[in-house]
Amino acid sequence: MSQTPGHLVVIGGAEDKKGECKILREFVRLAGGPHARIVVITVATELPLEVGAEYLEVFDRIGVEDVRTFDVSNRENANSVSAVKAIEKATGVFFTGGDQVRITNLLGGTKIDAALHKRHEEGMVLAGTSAGASMMSTTMIIEGVPETNPRIGIVEMAPGMEFIPGVVIDQHFAQRGRLGRLLSAVAQYPHHLGLGIDENTALVLQNHEFVVIGDGAVTVIDAGALIYSNLPGLRKNDDLALCGVALHILPAGYRFNLRERTPVIEKDATKADRTRS
Amino acid sequence: MSQTPGHLVVIGGAEDKKGECKILREFVRLAGGPHARIVVITVATELPLEVGAEYLEVFDRIGVEDVRTFDVSNRENANSVSAVKAIEKATGVFFTGGDQVRITNLLGGTKIDAALHKRHEEGMVLAGTSAGASMMSTTMIIEGVPETNPRIGIVEMAPGMEFIPGVVIDQHFAQRGRLGRLLSAVAQYPHHLGLGIDENTALVLQNHEFVVIGDGAVTVIDAGALIYSNLPGLRKNDDLALCGVALHILPAGYRFNLRERTPVIEKDATKADRTRS
Repeated sequence: MSQTPGHLVVIGGAEDKKGECKILREFVRLAGGPHARIVVITVATELPLEVGAEYLEVFDRIGVEDVRTFDVSNRENANSVSAVKAIEKATGVFFTGGDQVRITNLLGGTKIDAALHKRHEEGMVLAGTSAGASMMSTTMIIEGVPETNPRIGIVEMAPGMEFIPGVVIDQHFAQRGRLGRLLSAVAQYPHHLGLGIDENTALVLQNHEFVVIGDGAVTVIDAGALIYSNLPGLRKNDDLALCGVALHILPAGYRFNLRERTPVIEKDATKADRTRS
Repeated sequence: MSQTPGHLVVIGGAEDKKGECKILREFVRLAGGPHARIVVITVATELPLEVGAEYLEVFDRIGVEDVRTFDVSNRENANSVSAVKAIEKATGVFFTGGDQVRITNLLGGTKIDAALHKRHEEGMVLAGTSAGASMMSTTMIIEGVPETNPRIGIVEMAPGMEFIPGVVIDQHFAQRGRLGRLLSAVAQYPHHLGLGIDENTALVLQNHEFVVIGDGAVTVIDAGALIYSNLPGLRKNDDLALCGVALHILPAGYRFNLRERTPVIEKDATKADRTRS
């Protein structure tokens, strides 16, 4: 078995399930194609049957033979032998949307949690959409006011499942006007890079580098570049002032290195652009 | 009469008209307080009577004795002697919201247009909200898809009334998720600074420097800082890749120098923050 950690497919929600299914197909391809063994975990949603059935249908249509769902409605489920066995066997695990707090509350510290980390380190592909994307980081946004300017008080954070260190992820990013809330989150600890993922868009991460796939963009917010902020001493509902935040807008095909905090521009692309300009 | 150009009060729409009326009061104060002579121009809206009556009521409540509205429904109106006389006498002119194209189409090159520029250069205060804010710049956004990632095709631009060179203004900024469309606008000519003004928020500009007032923030987008873009050769609906855009989030009280392209941080503020951190 490979000892390179598997890819992480982090989806901004509302991924296409009826048409080309570009993102879900890429997840399946990474997980082994037709021979993939996929487990869909519906723990985040309160409609596990409906949501589970929808993904069973789409993965079946894509041509995965071995796909199953399982729900976790209490922590007992999350310690069951059969659940752990399913994860042990899986080549790809998919987390649906819902509420990210359900994921960490119900799975945190259980046998499934341990199995997911172990298997991911061995090469299992892990995907998540919407709430399933948010939970990937060490610190996650659990609540936040959209469509407002940044203020510390508009965003609530909590520990995530720790698959990706050093980032805070937000989803439905452009569609729900979440710039202010993601800025509010990363400003509090500017070491964190903010990753705003649009709907039907995903980042595929391995070894600190991700590539974007899908229809929208991933917006990387680097508050480490700050030249000034009014954060020290700021109270919860004071307005944030942030000067010199660096912003990278990365549509499909573009790459970013999280460790270096820089986009990875292919030499050919740069050259082509220079020739044309 | 002063030969310093008057202040420009550029409002992101939906300014408070029932409560404290902070922004409208500041406009009145700059225009001379109770002795101000205010003209409200309703050219942008197709409901000039309703909109005009609303502003008459609020300026009256604030204590302005001399306030009148006038509408321009055709270019003939915009060349009338009485209209020009009203502008000549005004210490403050206020443009309501509506459609910014109506402003430039009906006023562009008319006697009112000339009178506005002349009087503004002599010190008359000029304010505009929403469409009345957009028209202030040399190039203005006239149409754009909100809540999407940047693509050139999502934003249409046209000449503005040229009161503020070197910027593109967008309003209702956080509330309508307009980061993508403003990025699409400024990326095309990164000399332009993007100014995204939130609702019930304004920038007050004089001599290349503005200060923010109101409840939200002004987001300054400086694509001049770009380290990479895929713009050369890009087609209308291709996704934009933009790396290294600088972002400044400025709530009430913060200042920015448009010519220097930098926030103006008060020495005391910086010192206080440093001491606390």
